[in-house]
Amino acid sequence: MGKHFGRKPKCLLPILGLSLIERLLHIFQENGINEVIIVTGYQSELIQQKIASKQIPGINIIYIKNEDWEKGNESSLEAALTEIDRDEYFLLVMSDHLYDPHLIKEAVEKVQQKQLIIFYDDSVARNELEGALKITVDTAGKIFDIGKQLDSNLVDCGIMILKGDIKELCENSKDMKELSELVKFYSIKHSITACKVGSSYWQDIDTYENVHSARNKILRSLITQKEGFISRNFNRHISLKLTSYIASFNIKPNSISFISFLISVLSGALFFYKNPLWAGIAAQLSSIIDGVDGEIARVKFLSSRYGGYFDSILDRYGDVSIITGMAFYSLSAERYEAVLIIAVMAMVGSFMSMISKEKFHSEYGAPYLQRMYDGWTQYLPSSRDGRLFIIFLGGVFNQVFPALVILALLTNFQALYRLMYTVKKIKV
Amino acid sequence: MGKHFGRKPKCLLPILGLSLIERLLHIFQENGINEVIIVTGYQSELIQQKIASKQIPGINIIYIKNEDWEKGNESSLEAALTEIDRDEYFLLVMSDHLYDPHLIKEAVEKVQQKQLIIFYDDSVARNELEGALKITVDTAGKIFDIGKQLDSNLVDCGIMILKGDIKELCENSKDMKELSELVKFYSIKHSITACKVGSSYWQDIDTYENVHSARNKILRSLITQKEGFISRNFNRHISLKLTSYIASFNIKPNSISFISFLISVLSGALFFYKNPLWAGIAAQLSSIIDGVDGEIARVKFLSSRYGGYFDSILDRYGDVSIITGMAFYSLSAERYEAVLIIAVMAMVGSFMSMISKEKFHSEYGAPYLQRMYDGWTQYLPSSRDGRLFIIFLGGVFNQVFPALVILALLTNFQALYRLMYTVKKIKV
Repeated sequence: MGKHFGRKPKCLLPILGLSLIERLLHIFQENGINEVIIVTGYQSELIQQKIASKQIPGINIIYIKNEDWEKGNESSLEAALTEIDRDEYFLLVMSDHLYDPHLIKEAVEKVQQKQLIIFYDDSVARNELEGALKITVDTAGKIFDIGKQLDSNLVDCGIMILKGDIKELCENSKDMKELSELVKFYSIKHSITACKVGSSYWQDIDTYENVHSARNKILRSLITQKEGFISRNFNRHISLKLTSYIASFNIKPNSISFISFLISVLSGALFFYKNPLWAGIAAQLSSIIDGVDGEIARVKFLSSRYGGYFDSILDRYGDVSIITGMAFYSLSAERYEAVLIIAVMAMVGSFMSMISKEKFHSEYGAPYLQRMYDGWTQYLPSSRDGRLFIIFLGGVFNQVFPALVILALLTNFQALYRLMYTVKKIKV
Repeated sequence: MGKHFGRKPKCLLPILGLSLIERLLHIFQENGINEVIIVTGYQSELIQQKIASKQIPGINIIYIKNEDWEKGNESSLEAALTEIDRDEYFLLVMSDHLYDPHLIKEAVEKVQQKQLIIFYDDSVARNELEGALKITVDTAGKIFDIGKQLDSNLVDCGIMILKGDIKELCENSKDMKELSELVKFYSIKHSITACKVGSSYWQDIDTYENVHSARNKILRSLITQKEGFISRNFNRHISLKLTSYIASFNIKPNSISFISFLISVLSGALFFYKNPLWAGIAAQLSSIIDGVDGEIARVKFLSSRYGGYFDSILDRYGDVSIITGMAFYSLSAERYEAVLIIAVMAMVGSFMSMISKEKFHSEYGAPYLQRMYDGWTQYLPSSRDGRLFIIFLGGVFNQVFPALVILALLTNFQALYRLMYTVKKIKV
């Protein structure tokens, strides 16, 4: 269900490279939904054709054209109900809304628990309350009233769980135009639970400001608590801008991983050819772009296990290239024995940073949780974002060998600390 | 149940550092058995005291002293049956036999399926058949007769599954001395399935030759199909000898891992001090001892996830030490740029050999099966046993730099082959 923007149906509006409806179908697929009914009205052939051109395996789509779409969205639900059994619970969403995948996940679980639910948001800004569809709730947490005129700050998010027997009311509601009226009528006899969306995001798309806001909500959701300090507080600001620019092009995440790798090879070459400033900048750029592949993969639902593997192996070779370049650069000023030892240690430490986590994973059958296990050493810049930042500083301030020494000490200390202390005491 | 060797009960006979009964209790623990009844006769206090001194958590042991032990083993079962309910199925084993853990595992599964079973072996040598307790089987695969005089090559392995209601027969069997007579009597009314031990080993310990044979059976079981060619066909022959010697001492597997690491550091130092012959030998020795920690852990039931982690991390640092030593050795004859590049590549490749498998494991949630995935490249000596063998040859024939070059090419080829070909096509 949705309206349109200019000449194009809103559900086909691309946000970060995916139309709203395509994004919804991907989220459905991830959550194991395999039956979807799409009710179209305005430009229904175009919508059907656009969706068919993207292949989302495992989802069976039934298209229903609602000839009366201009009468209001009640008629669209009525059209869909012809395909839904009386005792079936179903999830109703708006094709012109953006939904957090976590919200859909929660809703799918509640469909399986056979609960009647309307999701609401109590954090909508005061100035946006007017014109929004609102609800009021009784003391038992059930829906009491629904309407645009209500004096309430609980805004309907356009995602609800209903039951097929609502079709019985359609007969008596020939004069109803709005879905909300039908649901309100249904809620008199069937108690519907009001459920707060919590920390999940959602967005009704009516204006270009809404589109902008939707983009930002998706991008912000890409920053995770798991990543390193430099990545979270510095790299992400730039990589998210790149991602928001690149998303509309047809560039694969693995291609971006490869570009990041090439830039780290370039960084190594620049160190080799005695240009530490640009070498350091290239190293940091590679680090930033190393975040973009994963962002694009998540934004466009292109994540794959091979992608994770490919990125990880190329990152290792990228590190090697940069450290080798730094070693050659250092040879002009330092004894080659010292350079060889320190370069080897820095390289080994870079690998150990990964191995000490991966080996834990395969041996203990659970991922290594740095924030939980590493104690104070979690603040050391020994993960890849931190290491490349040290290299960046070493290059920019022309302190290449000291940067290598810091890397060598830091990373090996971290690995040995894990070996002798952290992992030893872990009981999984 | 068991007899004695000289002055010591046979169940306390140490084989590879563990007494027969201790080994049995460890196997029981691994298979989730938590109730064990031990019937003692000869020197029962000594047995009880020895077992109590080893702590095997999660197993509740009931000791029953059979005062009539000299009358025959029927009386021992009778004593145990006082603690077993009429409708309970139980596993009966001999404390003076050695059993393959796989055999106990199979038996435990069949106890849960409530099957009456006697395990037999049809591969006992002709000259050992005389004096052994044998069975004959009817056309339905059920026990037909049991006895030492039978003309049969199906030898009873001393491991059977019975039911508590066998105690009802004990009343009528005051003149029976042997367990086998009681079981034969029981099998008339209750059909007992004869089950072949298959590829599992077992050993009745009566003579010193039996002890020797038991040791060999345990040691042979340590060679797995998963390991590399050099390890399986060369290293294991020596490491098993070391293990069989070391097992009787109280040396922890992690100490052995550390010794192996120290020897690889020694190898690196010997390369550094221009002694490639002994450096190569030390590298190979380290490789052999690297197998002993795991063997000791499995033989003495000391395996731990931390042990696997510890060994793996130390191995990486051991590799680094040897390759760094080889690099310094090569500096006298080669240009330092070439040495630095090749040493870095050899080091990176050594790490990649592990990372390309571990990352697969964490990304795909299943171990990387070299024999299944690697195609013809599984025959490349790129795993640790092969790499250290190349280093051994390089040292012994004083071809240190060529050995480094081979390592560099081989290991990185393997990693890139996995990245671009093997892993790409895997669908787990």
